[in-house]
Amino acid sequence: MIDRTFRALADPTRREILRLLKDRDLAAGDLAAHFDMAFASVSHHLQVLRDSGLVQSRREGQFIIYSLNTTVFQDALQHLMGIAGTAPSKKSTTRKRGDS
Amino acid sequence: MIDRTFRALADPTRREILRLLKDRDLAAGDLAAHFDMAFASVSHHLQVLRDSGLVQSRREGQFIIYSLNTTVFQDALQHLMGIAGTAPSKKSTTRKRGDS
Repeated sequence: MIDRTFRALADPTRREILRLLKDRDLAAGDLAAHFDMAFASVSHHLQVLRDSGLVQSRREGQFIIYSLNTTVFQDALQHLMGIAGTAPSKKSTTRKRGDS
Repeated sequence: MIDRTFRALADPTRREILRLLKDRDLAAGDLAAHFDMAFASVSHHLQVLRDSGLVQSRREGQFIIYSLNTTVFQDALQHLMGIAGTAPSKKSTTRKRGDS
């Protein structure tokens, strides 16, 4: 599942959708209006995000409203922080260990 | 480039390699010994990690030594935190906004 989350994150349009949904829930049409691409393409990206769990949808009347699933997003973040050893501060490129 | 980083992260073996390299630099053979898979498979994962920039390699005598590129890793982490709005603490699944 976490694999799917990272794969979903590996696209600039999908990351932009997540950024937009961070501020508020949006209908597919509102989201599509933000991008210079076919509605079908945006719709496909939304499907990938839904499959990954990063985004949820619900019906409100005739609209499908999309929202960010912050739990799944935070899980991915925590997972990365777990690999790195929590503190996101170190900036050295390589650990020293003899010469190269 | 960040797309490639997230794609590289979308695999449990590659994330485990990063975890191992967090503690210390390792030769390909040392890394391969950790996994119940063919050396060629581990080698392929190392190549994907190198292509993504998450891992660097250098020659030491007859060995190729791999190390974590913490800068690239932290960039991915910062990128995610930028989408989420920094604080990795919220745990609610959906924002409230009328009923569903």
